[in-house]
Amino acid sequence: MLAEIITIGDEILIGQIVDTNSAWIAQELNNIGIRIKQISSVSDDREHILAALKEASKRADVILITGGLGPTKDDITKKTLADYFGVGFVENKDALDNVLQIFSRYNRPMLDVNRLQAQVPANCEVILNKNGTAPGMWFNVDGKIYVSMPGVPHEMMYMMEDSVIPKLKTSLKLPFIIHKTILTVGEGESYLAERIADIEDALPSYIKLAYLPKLGQVRLRLSAYGEDEVLLKEKINEFSAKIVERVANVVAAEEDIPVEKAILNYMEQKGFTLSVAESCTGGYISHLFTQHPGSSKVFFGGAVSYSYELKESILGVKNETLQKYGAVSEETATEMVQGALLNFKSDYAIAVTGIAGPDGGTPDKPVGTVWIAVANVNKMVVKKLTFGNKRHQNIERSAISALNMLNTLLH
Amino acid sequence: MLAEIITIGDEILIGQIVDTNSAWIAQELNNIGIRIKQISSVSDDREHILAALKEASKRADVILITGGLGPTKDDITKKTLADYFGVGFVENKDALDNVLQIFSRYNRPMLDVNRLQAQVPANCEVILNKNGTAPGMWFNVDGKIYVSMPGVPHEMMYMMEDSVIPKLKTSLKLPFIIHKTILTVGEGESYLAERIADIEDALPSYIKLAYLPKLGQVRLRLSAYGEDEVLLKEKINEFSAKIVERVANVVAAEEDIPVEKAILNYMEQKGFTLSVAESCTGGYISHLFTQHPGSSKVFFGGAVSYSYELKESILGVKNETLQKYGAVSEETATEMVQGALLNFKSDYAIAVTGIAGPDGGTPDKPVGTVWIAVANVNKMVVKKLTFGNKRHQNIERSAISALNMLNTLLH
Repeated sequence: MLAEIITIGDEILIGQIVDTNSAWIAQELNNIGIRIKQISSVSDDREHILAALKEASKRADVILITGGLGPTKDDITKKTLADYFGVGFVENKDALDNVLQIFSRYNRPMLDVNRLQAQVPANCEVILNKNGTAPGMWFNVDGKIYVSMPGVPHEMMYMMEDSVIPKLKTSLKLPFIIHKTILTVGEGESYLAERIADIEDALPSYIKLAYLPKLGQVRLRLSAYGEDEVLLKEKINEFSAKIVERVANVVAAEEDIPVEKAILNYMEQKGFTLSVAESCTGGYISHLFTQHPGSSKVFFGGAVSYSYELKESILGVKNETLQKYGAVSEETATEMVQGALLNFKSDYAIAVTGIAGPDGGTPDKPVGTVWIAVANVNKMVVKKLTFGNKRHQNIERSAISALNMLNTLLH
Repeated sequence: MLAEIITIGDEILIGQIVDTNSAWIAQELNNIGIRIKQISSVSDDREHILAALKEASKRADVILITGGLGPTKDDITKKTLADYFGVGFVENKDALDNVLQIFSRYNRPMLDVNRLQAQVPANCEVILNKNGTAPGMWFNVDGKIYVSMPGVPHEMMYMMEDSVIPKLKTSLKLPFIIHKTILTVGEGESYLAERIADIEDALPSYIKLAYLPKLGQVRLRLSAYGEDEVLLKEKINEFSAKIVERVANVVAAEEDIPVEKAILNYMEQKGFTLSVAESCTGGYISHLFTQHPGSSKVFFGGAVSYSYELKESILGVKNETLQKYGAVSEETATEMVQGALLNFKSDYAIAVTGIAGPDGGTPDKPVGTVWIAVANVNKMVVKKLTFGNKRHQNIERSAISALNMLNTLLH
């Protein structure tokens, strides 16, 4: 069963927002055995939307559309869908009740444009939007299912979970797709490929292997497609086990999780605790850990010590050290990680200090110079890394490098 | 001048990664006056890639392709491009030198598959990849420009900045696109639309107005398209000024920046400093501030106090308060924000404590309950917010709400 996602809105095409909806929708559909054939982002333009709908309906059976349902003039998705299906509009009572209820909850007067949001194409089934005024719409035309949803992430997500996914499951006879991912840290893509070449060559035709490299990590993803769930699971587990056995020294997780989640799982199982002292990563490492449910069992928190003063007062870095070696130095990184272990009373700690840029570099410490320390009470590893001049990249690469170092220290 | 972006790789279609490349590329192209007609994500499948190339070339003059250039078997972009153009392969000396140099830098033996990376379609011009082994490729066929780049963000970004953008500028006669964005905080989309309806109706046909709502904020984006740069700038500034005058009470910035950047700019100009005390947002607010260059002039840093112990030791929250009212309470939020002001010695502070979920809720404090405090030495605002049960959403909405509250306190 194939689906396509069409996201509508100029804001994606001019790069003002990153399309996070599509990845989320793709995961949800994959979980119920629907593969995504294509994701297309198109503009708020009638002809272009019509063409995209037509093309998608040739390739897929399910077309999920997000965006362009707001009350303002630039939003034309609903009108264009009615044209596409050649139908007029009707006022939907449930959608109108929902709009009225939302306005009464916030105690604000309802405008004419909001009442218009309850008008929907005559051939659709309304999907209630409990978080907003724009209703979702479900169309079943010529054996194809079209679903139109708002582009606001939390409105779309609740609608998918509460209505669209359950309705797709009951409407369609779905095949099985099974993915299995192995996370490796510290070995390059082509070396991994060479180490497991014979296993890859022996894969049956219904299992695909993909290499997903990212900053010192490579995820190996096996995907099996077919009707026989038991066979697919058995075969994918068999080949996954062979690969894990072969490259065991670099395996961080046998499931599709990011490295910080692999660290949290391992540390929770061992009863270890963690704190951080972040300078140039500015809270990003903490955010990576705390985005995961249950992280509080392992992660105590820590300091974002952007200023000299906070490095001294919260972490106990000596003023002398900062004056003599600078904030970006092996000595400061060392004192930061030791300060975190001592003051935050965790078993392990991470410290990062560097020049994220684009300004602040000097000839001997150019932008992109980063010192990372990871430690427990018995052992410490300190490393200098040199990245480029892109602030976002430097923050991300520093964080991932620190996580990779902690993962290696733990194992 | 129209362009399309094609991203190739199953990892986007199964939702394993979010496509951040496209938004970045779209911004870069918009800056030089190239509009994006469509962004398409397709799988590592020969026929599908061929079809996508053909469709894109009908709609656009420039086709930028990312992904599928790795050394492993699942990567087929290069082979498919050669088929698309009907050409064979040649070994490119510069690309080979680059591969050799990268392997000698890391002091690792080169594999046969890596040498193959220097093989490129005979009709392409090689774009050097200084951060990786896969060369970029530039094709100029039948008046259309095709550029193929790796999907790894930092490899693609350096290639775009160093080579592709300059080469596009010299190869094409480019029209002008001017965007102007106004960030508003605290007024709903439809109310804003009603307040400026007459201004919107008076817009000339070459200027479009879009409403981009997000969590208590609405960005108003004016876009002007045409040949006469002076006229476009004059008109867009004229209409932007009219809108800003009309809704001045809710304008946070007159440029396309996120609210935390508007706060940093305003505080820097006033000489104010800021610190944070984050519990349920777990470093995310710090990350939002510190991702911006120059944030250290305003932002001192702060505490990620996930545990009771750190709330007490770093922020000075009383143990009695935590025991009596709980970590998620008005009293704890108040002591956290006061602790941040006192211990971190900033002019302003933000404190957030809540239950991000999915676990940890109780009947009187369900998941999604969040207390936020913003303060300076003279004034404090504390608010309780109630969100849903999605952890990521709760973290993001808590952070944005805190930023909106600080923005309002500042003005």
